[in-house]
Amino acid sequence: MLIKKESQSLSNYGSLICSDNCYTINSTLSISYSLTIEKEVFKPGNDKLANLCPSKRALIVIDKSVWDIYKDEILQYFASHDILIDFVIMECGEKNKSLDATLDILNRMESFGVLRRSEPVIAIGGGVLLDVVGFASSMYRRGIPYIRVPTTLMAMIDATLGIKTGINYLERRNRLGAYYAPHSAIIDTSFLKTVDKREISNGAGEIFKLAVVKDAELFDLLDKHGKKLLDNKFQKNEEIVSNVINLSIKGMLDELIYNMWELELQRLVDFGHSFSPLIEMKSLPIFLHGEAVALDVVLSCAISNVRGCLSDEDLLRVIKVASDLSLPWTHPLFRDEELIYEALSDTVLHRNGSQNLPLPVTIGNSKFVNNVDKKQIKKATQILEKLSSHHMEIY
Amino acid sequence: MLIKKESQSLSNYGSLICSDNCYTINSTLSISYSLTIEKEVFKPGNDKLANLCPSKRALIVIDKSVWDIYKDEILQYFASHDILIDFVIMECGEKNKSLDATLDILNRMESFGVLRRSEPVIAIGGGVLLDVVGFASSMYRRGIPYIRVPTTLMAMIDATLGIKTGINYLERRNRLGAYYAPHSAIIDTSFLKTVDKREISNGAGEIFKLAVVKDAELFDLLDKHGKKLLDNKFQKNEEIVSNVINLSIKGMLDELIYNMWELELQRLVDFGHSFSPLIEMKSLPIFLHGEAVALDVVLSCAISNVRGCLSDEDLLRVIKVASDLSLPWTHPLFRDEELIYEALSDTVLHRNGSQNLPLPVTIGNSKFVNNVDKKQIKKATQILEKLSSHHMEIY
Repeated sequence: MLIKKESQSLSNYGSLICSDNCYTINSTLSISYSLTIEKEVFKPGNDKLANLCPSKRALIVIDKSVWDIYKDEILQYFASHDILIDFVIMECGEKNKSLDATLDILNRMESFGVLRRSEPVIAIGGGVLLDVVGFASSMYRRGIPYIRVPTTLMAMIDATLGIKTGINYLERRNRLGAYYAPHSAIIDTSFLKTVDKREISNGAGEIFKLAVVKDAELFDLLDKHGKKLLDNKFQKNEEIVSNVINLSIKGMLDELIYNMWELELQRLVDFGHSFSPLIEMKSLPIFLHGEAVALDVVLSCAISNVRGCLSDEDLLRVIKVASDLSLPWTHPLFRDEELIYEALSDTVLHRNGSQNLPLPVTIGNSKFVNNVDKKQIKKATQILEKLSSHHMEIY
Repeated sequence: MLIKKESQSLSNYGSLICSDNCYTINSTLSISYSLTIEKEVFKPGNDKLANLCPSKRALIVIDKSVWDIYKDEILQYFASHDILIDFVIMECGEKNKSLDATLDILNRMESFGVLRRSEPVIAIGGGVLLDVVGFASSMYRRGIPYIRVPTTLMAMIDATLGIKTGINYLERRNRLGAYYAPHSAIIDTSFLKTVDKREISNGAGEIFKLAVVKDAELFDLLDKHGKKLLDNKFQKNEEIVSNVINLSIKGMLDELIYNMWELELQRLVDFGHSFSPLIEMKSLPIFLHGEAVALDVVLSCAISNVRGCLSDEDLLRVIKVASDLSLPWTHPLFRDEELIYEALSDTVLHRNGSQNLPLPVTIGNSKFVNNVDKKQIKKATQILEKLSSHHMEIY
């Protein structure tokens, strides 16, 4: 018997098999959500977000720096749509991707009395905020809807797209979390005009990762226009901006779409996340996430070079593009072989006992390997050491 | 494009639709798990559980009272199968269905270094323990496998069957949680022989609920054999025990199977959980969960009687069976109309603004109503007041 139950954008099929002293439960959850690219989401005439609040009530969790800039505009927007709002204003930064921040939001959900199904919580901010709000939403009453409104480049091309939510715990990055789809997301690149340049560079770290591991066309765009895009905060050269943003979103979604729950642990998008998670966490707040990813990308490329795969020329191109994007490409912590090996061991646990390490063979083409050893890591750090003595280190 | 990814008993289909400035993500998660009814799970020759530990390592979370009784047997079992184990011993009771207990387990998962996919955590205990371990498992690395081994009647016919996990928070029952399927479950009724009689009565509360709301055959079995079953702790009259257990499991699964994620908020199995959640939490530790459910069942029947649906005779039969099962059927807190109304209001929030109240029309047949008011509640409490003055109250 297959019976379908639907609610909002979810549906559930199920079947029950009973045999002697054994019941087998088969069940299927379908999720559906949309990501809309939209300009000026809080402009008076823009009904998009207001239409997502049918109960005329909304709890909003917003990044403090965004709140400081857009406060009046936002208050006026909701007032003009007769939507009763309450705000949780959250400090940004990896340190706040915490259990404490999650509990704060849960307590406010309780005091606001959020309905279980029809009052989406609206998360406005960077990746950290979206991850924390998503995690809190996943567990409050076993799941309430939430809307993602990313305000940083990092969030727009990464945290917003998939169904991962999470927080850091016991000094481990994303140690706790849930796969929990948003109700929907609105991506408004006009927020970037008020974002700090380092923060844009941070987001470019994930674009850079995607380009190196799987998209030579995107890499070429970064190679040609990366510096300008950064200098203009993605507000000029609309066609190039749109190309870079769409290639990034599409490239990421193509990897995620058939692996939303990460049933497959060989993931190209894990490139740049092999050594960085532990090092990033241990050295907080030295690196922003995208910076740690960029350092991991270059280290991985150096390892691939040591293994005789990636050419010297490609390695140097990768470093050049990182520099264009104001991303660090080497750092003493990412040349500390013991620390790097410890980080890899922790990643192996997370990948269920295998390295599953994506390594580029050429720019835009990669393979997975499972036999990176200490020797290769040491040689890679020596290469980076040597190259860095010819360059200025960024930190 | 539909691509399927599989891992263990999960699979994921996905499709991506791209149109102008809008991406729609459609994705499907299939889950599958089995519940096996098994005798003497820790008997030396029984390989069932050992076979579920392919890595020869397991973190076990076990109820303290179960540990005290079965410690030697369990240690010997895992030793004889060469499985390296670590134990978290947890006190039982609703008070421990807490964030603190969840964090304790998470910390032990981290120190044990549980692999992400192939080292199921084994939860041995009652419903509270299974719910807490399930919740911790759902969030650790965004989900690791866990096996349910229920040791109380309540857990066997309720917490073990579906995919709900959760903890109490801010004095609200199950305020936090996740829908997260177990890897599998093993139901071994021989554990009941060492369980306290009140604890068996507690479990019978959920069987009683199911019987009243949807299963006249099960109700008749309880009416005829309830007292004996309880006295013998489900260890004699094997055929009747098997009938009652299987009707309960099957009856519950039939309700759950097409609604695992509760997309439909009209749920017959919510019968007995309309007023009790708040009252149970506010009066901890007066009632065990099944006792609060039984009190709610009788109150709901009285309301149905006031509304002219359930006959006087059926109401009295319901009370008789509750008494046979040593379940309380009325209590001053469940005759406090203000408190009852507050509890209903909280439930309305949880059911997204509607009462969705299942009320029996006859024994075993119910309908949903949305217009129970204070007057009806008051009259129902008066009926129960009157009846209770003719009976001994259990508390």
